[in-house]
Amino acid sequence: MQGLKAILLICDGMGDRPVPELGARTPLEAANNINMNTLALQGECGIMDPIAPGIRPGSDTSHLSILGYDPYKAYTGRGPFEAAGIGMDVRKGDIALRCNFSTVDESMVIVDRRAGRIEKGTDQLAALVNGMQIEDVTAFFKESVAHRGALVLRGPGLGAAVTDADPHEVGAKVHESKPIDPNDQASAKTARIVNEFVRRSYQLLKDHPVNKQREAEGKALANIILPRGAGVAPHVESFEEKYHLKGAAVVETGLIGGIAVYLGMDIVEASGATGGLDSDLMSMGRSVLKALENHSFVLCNLKGPDVAGHDGQAKAKVEVIERIDAVVGMLMQEVDPLTYIVLTADHSTPISVMDHSGDPVPIAIWGPDVRVDSIQAYDERSVIGGGLVRIKGTDVMPTLTNLLGTQEKFGA
Amino acid sequence: MQGLKAILLICDGMGDRPVPELGARTPLEAANNINMNTLALQGECGIMDPIAPGIRPGSDTSHLSILGYDPYKAYTGRGPFEAAGIGMDVRKGDIALRCNFSTVDESMVIVDRRAGRIEKGTDQLAALVNGMQIEDVTAFFKESVAHRGALVLRGPGLGAAVTDADPHEVGAKVHESKPIDPNDQASAKTARIVNEFVRRSYQLLKDHPVNKQREAEGKALANIILPRGAGVAPHVESFEEKYHLKGAAVVETGLIGGIAVYLGMDIVEASGATGGLDSDLMSMGRSVLKALENHSFVLCNLKGPDVAGHDGQAKAKVEVIERIDAVVGMLMQEVDPLTYIVLTADHSTPISVMDHSGDPVPIAIWGPDVRVDSIQAYDERSVIGGGLVRIKGTDVMPTLTNLLGTQEKFGA
Repeated sequence: MQGLKAILLICDGMGDRPVPELGARTPLEAANNINMNTLALQGECGIMDPIAPGIRPGSDTSHLSILGYDPYKAYTGRGPFEAAGIGMDVRKGDIALRCNFSTVDESMVIVDRRAGRIEKGTDQLAALVNGMQIEDVTAFFKESVAHRGALVLRGPGLGAAVTDADPHEVGAKVHESKPIDPNDQASAKTARIVNEFVRRSYQLLKDHPVNKQREAEGKALANIILPRGAGVAPHVESFEEKYHLKGAAVVETGLIGGIAVYLGMDIVEASGATGGLDSDLMSMGRSVLKALENHSFVLCNLKGPDVAGHDGQAKAKVEVIERIDAVVGMLMQEVDPLTYIVLTADHSTPISVMDHSGDPVPIAIWGPDVRVDSIQAYDERSVIGGGLVRIKGTDVMPTLTNLLGTQEKFGA
Repeated sequence: MQGLKAILLICDGMGDRPVPELGARTPLEAANNINMNTLALQGECGIMDPIAPGIRPGSDTSHLSILGYDPYKAYTGRGPFEAAGIGMDVRKGDIALRCNFSTVDESMVIVDRRAGRIEKGTDQLAALVNGMQIEDVTAFFKESVAHRGALVLRGPGLGAAVTDADPHEVGAKVHESKPIDPNDQASAKTARIVNEFVRRSYQLLKDHPVNKQREAEGKALANIILPRGAGVAPHVESFEEKYHLKGAAVVETGLIGGIAVYLGMDIVEASGATGGLDSDLMSMGRSVLKALENHSFVLCNLKGPDVAGHDGQAKAKVEVIERIDAVVGMLMQEVDPLTYIVLTADHSTPISVMDHSGDPVPIAIWGPDVRVDSIQAYDERSVIGGGLVRIKGTDVMPTLTNLLGTQEKFGA
């Protein structure tokens, strides 16, 4: 059918385990989520392992998997996605690292890992180091939010298996980056470049007017840049090449936004999206509708349930699920009848664990022509016995593109 | 147990989606298929992804998968199976191409791609070009039904990544076959051989008495042979080597017959098997029983549901399913009690899609010693919750040979 579109609604960390405080129900089971239940009733349901049964996903690896990219091949660390997410040009084979602006004393001992959570002027400091040439390598640097930034190294013969320059603790000396395997010449070269970048960053930053002013104001200086978490930029087919779908993403964290950008999706902003429990979820829902006007696929990641899960706050998790439920209801009402909604989570963040777990998550597909099954409620245990049975994250996009009619036939 | 045998009954394209015309039931759900339901009731059921969840199979890739051959390794295109299906000797590494006898004018422009759908004399024309030596390559050619034929190239250093000589349209000039990658020497050699084969076919065919007579009768000449769809013949273990089962196939299309022959199975003919909706399915069922007399495994592909699906004819699909149901009933009654019947489909061909889709298909295994489950009807949704849960095509033969007792133990 012409004009079929899809929304992939990923409720971050929404899966859970039975919570004593909720009468041995999960937050989803305890929530008043009538719209999700209607979606399940009218759709096809199942349980999903974002990566594989029992595997504890990160939000990044899980999103890659659900978008159909094998995370064991496409994921080499956060660096490349983080850099892409702040608008840097990241190319296959580049080495990307996450960075902090930090404060060191004259003997290179860490005074503040976050440079007093500096708010302003990092763009000026970034300009000093961006484009630096070290040996035959070009170092691209861009500031991100607050004290954060990313470094992209481009040149021949670089490896990513290097230790961090960031010592990760106050009072420690800046580490010298080293190849993890001393015989790995490519990573040895990267370590050399990283160390030179760190050394020069200190020389260039320490006396800059931004820091002179911070000194005058009694603030911690942003006098060095410390890279960590090196990863080689993977080659991935763009989302559009892979699926013949024009994709957009409505997200509230840089991590997921970076993945979307890396895959070539457009970012559609939503006002009031904070990534916290105070986020304006209905605004995000409206941005999804707006994105659908000129895209055939919209990914939306709602962070709230994960935040409540990490905090171990059962009632807050129930509440944010109920606020998501209202968004689901609005979307079901407002979308064109030729639109699919896939409702799922990227992993469980159980109240009892306060971190991501490998428990599978519910999934429901709602839209034209689906094999509606007998499931009547949307939660971890009610979806068992649904038509999708038990699938993996990497099964989602083939299942969806089969319905959308955009998938090529394999064979005759 | 001694004497265990199996029938693998593949109802082509039988899976579907809810059809409005049938009251939101699938054709299987709407059909009066009491024998299939009895088989499900007495057997073990589940849902099957012929290749993987959501993946849209061809009938060829799906049959390979269900017969236990990974189609991502064993499938390189239709050529090799097509050639095997018409009785040609195809060996690992051979390049096989599908061909048409066509009509060209003197400047090599296509007048008729199918040479007036020539019915007679292609065996004489084939004899002219078969066994031709070009460079160090031997070109084997055999005619098939009507204007069709297959070309097998055998020699050192050949590649399959070449473009078609067949321009696929009337009024176009015969194309020169070219390597897809100009640096691919092996495929460049194949292209050279193909072009020379085409050139010589014109020289040999144009004045042959068969064409002289066609000219006299005002019929389109079969004055050139145009190859397309090159594929390298894959190495596959024969069905008998792999499973220690003597296999036969009762089929009604060349595509599936070719796969069976390629795997070393015997073809058992059925009178009245047409590949259309008028096919004599009961005759095919009787051929299955006959094949069981001296084979331990019989594959039977019934094409009807796929034909009705491609045509978008819901009622015709229901009717042909009911005719298959009668065959299922006959087989359940007639087979030796030591016989398994596996009832499934190679893919869905939904009425709403009018082409193959990636929706999974029902499967039921009936016979001695199976873990009979609680499923009471055979259709896409009734089998959910069965003992087989959700399996892949490549799981079928291990599951079956486990029951047949012909599978070796892996480990101690």
